[in-house]
Amino acid sequence: MMARTLGTQAIPPTPRNEANDPTSLVARFGADQPLHLDCGVALSPLTIAYQTYGALNADKSNAVLICHALTGDQHVANVNPVTGKNGWWETMIGPGKPIDTDRFFVICSNVLASCLGTTGPASLLVDGGAPYALDFPVVTVRDMVRAQAMLVDHLGIDTLFCVAGGSMGGMQVLQWAASYPERVFCAMPIATAAKHSAQNIAFHEVGRQAIMADPDWRGGRYLAEGVRPEKGLAVARMAAHITYLSEPALHRKFGRKLQDRAAPTFSFDADFEIESYLRYQGRSFVERFDANSYLYLTRAMDYFDLAADYDGKLAGAFRGARTRFCVVSFTSDWLFPTSDSRAVVHALNASGASVSFVEIETDKGHDAFLLDVPELFATTKGFIDSAARARGLVEAARG
Amino acid sequence: MMARTLGTQAIPPTPRNEANDPTSLVARFGADQPLHLDCGVALSPLTIAYQTYGALNADKSNAVLICHALTGDQHVANVNPVTGKNGWWETMIGPGKPIDTDRFFVICSNVLASCLGTTGPASLLVDGGAPYALDFPVVTVRDMVRAQAMLVDHLGIDTLFCVAGGSMGGMQVLQWAASYPERVFCAMPIATAAKHSAQNIAFHEVGRQAIMADPDWRGGRYLAEGVRPEKGLAVARMAAHITYLSEPALHRKFGRKLQDRAAPTFSFDADFEIESYLRYQGRSFVERFDANSYLYLTRAMDYFDLAADYDGKLAGAFRGARTRFCVVSFTSDWLFPTSDSRAVVHALNASGASVSFVEIETDKGHDAFLLDVPELFATTKGFIDSAARARGLVEAARG
Repeated sequence: MMARTLGTQAIPPTPRNEANDPTSLVARFGADQPLHLDCGVALSPLTIAYQTYGALNADKSNAVLICHALTGDQHVANVNPVTGKNGWWETMIGPGKPIDTDRFFVICSNVLASCLGTTGPASLLVDGGAPYALDFPVVTVRDMVRAQAMLVDHLGIDTLFCVAGGSMGGMQVLQWAASYPERVFCAMPIATAAKHSAQNIAFHEVGRQAIMADPDWRGGRYLAEGVRPEKGLAVARMAAHITYLSEPALHRKFGRKLQDRAAPTFSFDADFEIESYLRYQGRSFVERFDANSYLYLTRAMDYFDLAADYDGKLAGAFRGARTRFCVVSFTSDWLFPTSDSRAVVHALNASGASVSFVEIETDKGHDAFLLDVPELFATTKGFIDSAARARGLVEAARG
Repeated sequence: MMARTLGTQAIPPTPRNEANDPTSLVARFGADQPLHLDCGVALSPLTIAYQTYGALNADKSNAVLICHALTGDQHVANVNPVTGKNGWWETMIGPGKPIDTDRFFVICSNVLASCLGTTGPASLLVDGGAPYALDFPVVTVRDMVRAQAMLVDHLGIDTLFCVAGGSMGGMQVLQWAASYPERVFCAMPIATAAKHSAQNIAFHEVGRQAIMADPDWRGGRYLAEGVRPEKGLAVARMAAHITYLSEPALHRKFGRKLQDRAAPTFSFDADFEIESYLRYQGRSFVERFDANSYLYLTRAMDYFDLAADYDGKLAGAFRGARTRFCVVSFTSDWLFPTSDSRAVVHALNASGASVSFVEIETDKGHDAFLLDVPELFATTKGFIDSAARARGLVEAARG
């Protein structure tokens, strides 16, 4: 019967805080530089873990900030030192890639409240003390962007050439354009929305309830008590993972194929390939992610409603912006469907912004922004190159 | 912090087996009448709990079998004695309703492996002993239909005038038409499919893993040990419930409305109405349903692939059938989308069957088959009345 439950292998109950990733750069902000959060708390101290690629030019006009998604990290274009896997957007970012590190200085930081180097609920409240757990303040997407702005200041950069990202990363892109319009020359929100839908809040709530239902969650204090809510977090990941794929992609990859056998077992073992795939997704996720961070980051996405800060009028968020926008959606993305992107585009048009909108035909679902989708690369390269010319950034000669 | 977890109220750990519902009729089949299951087991004894409405006519030609969905029950048109709620299809069935109990003898039985009167994993393996738990054999939709056929025999009925049902009930309708074509005059599969999709298997697997991850599941032996996996079952129900609704319906009902307050709480309380609604759905479900039954019934749906019994050719399932079919789907049903119904219709056409197909425009999602959808009632009445005339059933005079 043991095979019927998840997470039976031993996983060390190590907090995934800043100590775990010696390869990332870190910016530390002390008591003199608190981060003022939407909830009213002044958070201090604050550590931001980040990676950079390429070189900043003399007038500091070639910086590109990449914003990662819910469970992403700063290792956008280098091998992740914890998982050993390639950077999560190596297809997009690197020498000669659509976002060309021979031309641009690319920055990616781990978001506030995550668990991969930046301060979050697994960080220690006091040196040598217990982790924050639920004493960590609830943060918003705007708070994440405020922290990124502190990092950009710290790097001595005034205006970012580009801010780009997908999903929760796209929410940060929109928030950057709204909060700091004069600091963003061009912006690329991909597979995202200006507000989280009721259905998406519902899926997040299921994931949170799965975590909190795990007795090893211990009211959030699991790290101090030497355990981890592995099973609950795995169930949360499994539910979320379904929403990242499209039904056609699932059908193409798995269909009703049985796992290593010719006939059903008439049991609750993983008969179907999709079952063992999901169980694997759940298991591998708990090895790299902190359950409380999952609660905080899903909550931040739920709270995201950019128009709410502008009397409910989304166009107000972009009023007077001179940022150039390229909005991208995918036909089979049902988590952030094209209608969400279209609402953003309408608001941008209403505010007089420069915007192009590309809906890419693919059956890969929401995850398409992370996958090998040539039309996404071509769209990105075209947009970036055109904006770079407008910005006066000369293309590097290639031999 | 207690408000952050589910199922904190005390729920008596009472098995929901046949003892709980004294109002239903029961048919008992002893050792001389075992139910031969697809897994090879001969199940005995077998109790089937059912309800009937209206009167069987002299030549026993006016019987309508209603097949219920995953968590449904036999109380299709009477107040449920356990929950106190109206019958689940009272809008459809009753005097003067589309399926008119003044004309038809309506039967609805609790499916095999459920927990509301019919034998299932919560039933006692031996009188006075422990419940079956996971010693209950894994059953299929075909096994459910075999059990229903035993009940129909028991009632002395040869040919059913109609078999109708939605979702898992629709799977049973299709299986009836395939297994006993000569015993079904007309059939109405609603919001269903001839096979369960990879995405649907995935959602079921998440629910099962949530149940099995609950330490109170106890390897399935929770009833014998006086506990119940309430939190895991609630999470399973919450995840499933999202799939029963459409995104537009969720948006219309809940949107991003906050629960009894003007501003977010910056916490993990149920800030949004959709969150408290889902938590309520989870809590109320565990009061009426058995977790192991949920495992068995979802498994039966996953295994359902009618074409597999006919060399992968769905038309083979209906070859030579003289049953009249009315297939119904709903535009906003993403659990059993219209494409699933269209595949059934194509196979019926290929097999030369008589079939009409109605796709009903609604934003109510999969649950539309249970809701007040006038076009569904009109479609059902038209189909039933037409088939009754063909069957020579004279309409009762109404005064």
